[in-house]
Amino acid sequence: MYLIRVAEALRPRLALLCWMESMGDQTTRLQRSEKPPPPVMPAMFGRYEAMVGGELSQAVPLLPPPELSNVMRYHLGWVDRRGQPAASPASQGKALRPTLCVFACQALEGDPALALPAAAALELIHNFSLIHDDIQDQGYERRHQPTVWSLWGAPKALVAGDAMRSVGDLSALNCAGVGVPPAVALRVSGILTESYLEMIEGQCRDLVFETKTTITVDQYLEMIALKTGALIRSAVEIGSLLATGDSATTGAFANFGSYLGRAFQIRDDFLGIWGDEAATGKTTDGDIRQRKKSFPVVYALENSLGPARRELSRIYGAGNQDEMEESDIVRVREALDQVGAAAQCQLLTERSAGQALEALLGVELAPWARAEMEELVHFLSHREF
Amino acid sequence: MYLIRVAEALRPRLALLCWMESMGDQTTRLQRSEKPPPPVMPAMFGRYEAMVGGELSQAVPLLPPPELSNVMRYHLGWVDRRGQPAASPASQGKALRPTLCVFACQALEGDPALALPAAAALELIHNFSLIHDDIQDQGYERRHQPTVWSLWGAPKALVAGDAMRSVGDLSALNCAGVGVPPAVALRVSGILTESYLEMIEGQCRDLVFETKTTITVDQYLEMIALKTGALIRSAVEIGSLLATGDSATTGAFANFGSYLGRAFQIRDDFLGIWGDEAATGKTTDGDIRQRKKSFPVVYALENSLGPARRELSRIYGAGNQDEMEESDIVRVREALDQVGAAAQCQLLTERSAGQALEALLGVELAPWARAEMEELVHFLSHREF
Repeated sequence: MYLIRVAEALRPRLALLCWMESMGDQTTRLQRSEKPPPPVMPAMFGRYEAMVGGELSQAVPLLPPPELSNVMRYHLGWVDRRGQPAASPASQGKALRPTLCVFACQALEGDPALALPAAAALELIHNFSLIHDDIQDQGYERRHQPTVWSLWGAPKALVAGDAMRSVGDLSALNCAGVGVPPAVALRVSGILTESYLEMIEGQCRDLVFETKTTITVDQYLEMIALKTGALIRSAVEIGSLLATGDSATTGAFANFGSYLGRAFQIRDDFLGIWGDEAATGKTTDGDIRQRKKSFPVVYALENSLGPARRELSRIYGAGNQDEMEESDIVRVREALDQVGAAAQCQLLTERSAGQALEALLGVELAPWARAEMEELVHFLSHREF
Repeated sequence: MYLIRVAEALRPRLALLCWMESMGDQTTRLQRSEKPPPPVMPAMFGRYEAMVGGELSQAVPLLPPPELSNVMRYHLGWVDRRGQPAASPASQGKALRPTLCVFACQALEGDPALALPAAAALELIHNFSLIHDDIQDQGYERRHQPTVWSLWGAPKALVAGDAMRSVGDLSALNCAGVGVPPAVALRVSGILTESYLEMIEGQCRDLVFETKTTITVDQYLEMIALKTGALIRSAVEIGSLLATGDSATTGAFANFGSYLGRAFQIRDDFLGIWGDEAATGKTTDGDIRQRKKSFPVVYALENSLGPARRELSRIYGAGNQDEMEESDIVRVREALDQVGAAAQCQLLTERSAGQALEALLGVELAPWARAEMEELVHFLSHREF
């Protein structure tokens, strides 16, 4: 904790160095089960929540068929399956992408209002991709509630997803309506659409991985850079573009977003195996049961030796669709422990977090913005949910 | 034939009057089975084919995963299911929407090159909607070949559709790259996305119709204005917008597109019941077997009396999912004949065709453009395929 507090209080370059050095220390502490308390959600999430929420609720009712609107609003956690206002916002996401977008804009002294249409678009396009993903994966639960296709059937889920994407696209195009120059608004929509295509490419690569046990860590990192990283990077890049026309700055922000996306995903992979069910909302052992080839597994498949490697290859073997035996879950956890996969996750998350902050070293930022940037990176790479 | 020839040779207002008058005459002739020869595809389809094709092939390989590209290229009729170049272009569509877009632009003395990215986008978005429709309807055949989902499964078809839409969106956004002012390019993407949302609304209304037998003709026409009309209207409107900033002109073109869309769809409904299987590529009785509530059926449900009405209501009743008996197909045809549904189709098609041309009367057009406009309307409302 001491090192982290020092890091947060000091200037960026020093902060970076401290972070890099604290990695080994934290890993040791983790092994002694003296985990530091998890970081709380940074204030920026609360600061932009009402703005982004307002923009989203303006964007979504655009569509006339009330039934379709309800399906979209249900997925967004606003109403229950009967269309009644949801009792609690528990089923809503963190709104990470819109928050990143508005924050990137404001950090560069841009007007956050200019970023709101794009922020709403990012959240809607992220959610559209989740609706379609759930159809593809036949997933029954998302954010503690039944998935759209499992309630209304795949055809309606497909259309609701398509509609949500269109509503998102329109929101991005509407940038120009709040004073963004048309050429910049075009670029915003272009970045958004290109990053969505990268997401699809990532999904395709991920599907190919399902049939292989010889995936390298590098191949895995390339895949997540597309599948998860692209939209997170585009959120940050778009936010910066709405504040400045300086391409060195927007390029630096894009790099920051890429590394942040990696830290976010690897932390997600960690939580999927070692996270607390009550905090994550995901079933313990869920990722193992589903034979998800997340970072820890890919690392273990590449680095384990002897019987552990053979067992992992058998369990994660191509075409293995059987329900996983409890004894195999134990074997997987043993194999992961043997190669120190948890510590490797932490190490890579910390390294990516460090690289994210490093990418911004050349950019002039107000002290408050730099401090919040560090708080954000720290939260995303240490979160428990 | 004589009246039609005269109409084509004369000025628009006279042409319009002649068309309106010729309707009754044609109906009588049809009843005597002295059908005029079907019109051939207007020259404009051939004129723009290579340009639009070139633009499309540039747009589609944007996506890296080769397998996904192949699925898209298969659906577009360019390659077979193994990714080999298709032997014949038989499975390709008419490219109606891109042709309308480029023609609208050129008719207003705009540079057709400016319309190509939007034209490609229209074709890709139309095709994306077909890929997703086929998943929803569980359709096995499209343009004489197996549908994408039936070959590769619904999850891949879903992703291929999403990818095709993105490629289309990017093509539209790329308008600015060929010299379209950014504000106009934004409007192009906006019109495209809004019309796609209208399509979805139309699909939803159509789904609701499946469970009802009390649909009025007016409700049906509103539904097809959204489901089919919106994208056809937007093709024409976008083409005009790329040639002129005059809103009276683009508004007139949009109206022209709306009526043309109606004529196109009602002709489609006619061909779905009375068309020649060899020409349409659709199975005879297919629309009846599938209990499609197309215009002739809606008209008959509203206008038939006594036993015919009761039989129709029973056959098209809510929840009736049984395979249709041959005797019921005969009863449906009899009920349609009793109310003169075929003639009503023709009448409405002709009226919409006339209204389409009328919408353009106030717009100054070069004689060649006006003549081709008439040829186009005539083709779309008399086509046999």
